[in-house]
Amino acid sequence: MIADQLPEIEAIRKLKARYFRCMDQKRWDELAEVFAHDAVCQWDPQPDVLHGREAITAYIRAGIEKLVTVHHGHMPEIEITGPRTAHGIWAMSDLVVGEDFHLEGFGHYEEDYVKEGDGWRIRRLRLTRLRVDVRKKSEL
Amino acid sequence: MIADQLPEIEAIRKLKARYFRCMDQKRWDELAEVFAHDAVCQWDPQPDVLHGREAITAYIRAGIEKLVTVHHGHMPEIEITGPRTAHGIWAMSDLVVGEDFHLEGFGHYEEDYVKEGDGWRIRRLRLTRLRVDVRKKSEL
Amino acid sequence: MIADQLPEIEAIRKLKARYFRCMDQKRWDELAEVFAHDAVCQWDPQPDVLHGREAITAYIRAGIEKLVTVHHGHMPEIEITGPRTAHGIWAMSDLVVGEDFHLEGFGHYEEDYVKEGDGWRIRRLRLTRLRVDVRKKSEL
Repeated sequence: MIADQLPEIEAIRKLKARYFRCMDQKRWDELAEVFAHDAVCQWDPQPDVLHGREAITAYIRAGIEKLVTVHHGHMPEIEITGPRTAHGIWAMSDLVVGEDFHLEGFGHYEEDYVKEGDGWRIRRLRLTRLRVDVRKKSEL
Repeated sequence: MIADQLPEIEAIRKLKARYFRCMDQKRWDELAEVFAHDAVCQWDPQPDVLHGREAITAYIRAGIEKLVTVHHGHMPEIEITGPRTAHGIWAMSDLVVGEDFHLEGFGHYEEDYVKEGDGWRIRRLRLTRLRVDVRKKSEL
Repeated sequence: MIADQLPEIEAIRKLKARYFRCMDQKRWDELAEVFAHDAVCQWDPQPDVLHGREAITAYIRAGIEKLVTVHHGHMPEIEITGPRTAHGIWAMSDLVVGEDFHLEGFGHYEEDYVKEGDGWRIRRLRLTRLRVDVRKKSEL
């Protein structure tokens, strides 16, 4: 590892921190900024593949705006692959609570990042799942 | 970001690691050392605002000494704001288990740090909550 | 802290990330690579002390190959103790799901690392537990 890469790795860790925090604090304008304009995202178990910052942010917002959500990333493995490109793997856990259900999930993100003029952004995101537990309200 | 800041950021991550670990391992003397003498802390949903290292440590100890606790921080966003000052946001999760209840909570810390002679300390801490789930023993 | 240590600390964080991910993704050959050939491991509450990479990997595989597992590390405190040695503490949480049980646990790893020709490896690992909750299927 080259020491020069460490500031880039730290910047990507903070990028992913904003991804999680803006999602859970419902900060939609700030959330949009974490994605490249040409980003492509897919979150297992949803089959949808989203293209473009606007479509991605609208999709997340429609899915969770009225729900309590808690998303955490863990144990990043970030590789700087070029002057403006990087690759990352993150473990994740999430909690989504609606009026009539309670979902807990676990998995891994596999992502590509791009450094644009003003900082790193997520260009490609794919979530795979190890486990999802859903309980209905009647079981809580 | 300046590469010179990375050792400070790592030192603050380890400071916060000691905050969590000393709390959960009930190491009260070591826990006191993570706070500045003039620290100010508030943990939602408790309304109390604690002033000073001794009052803060006594408050934590009285609250959790006889309970099993598990506190984890996630996804730090740390900014070095001056030669001896820094600001941080952390996601968090906690588990508190007593004889007759089981609490799981989630939220964010927003904190200021100060670098004193021998290292970084927490000067201001405020916890806000996304979610708290409490179950009584009869429901477990 | 010396800035020169930061690349080593980041390499150890990624070593531990592979430990968790290869375990949960059941990548046994890659998992073996995270351990030194003379590694010694013990995972509370199991009393077994395992010696050597092959025995350690076989033990993990026998224990969890057919189970869904989710292991996360949190809040590392890593110290570089020599040119080729380091010490670390990690908080942890795990989830293990079998056909008839659901285990959630929490604790701390205390570990020694060694830098061999091609990178850092775990030489000694000891897990202690703060809490383990096991539910049988009939209670889920």
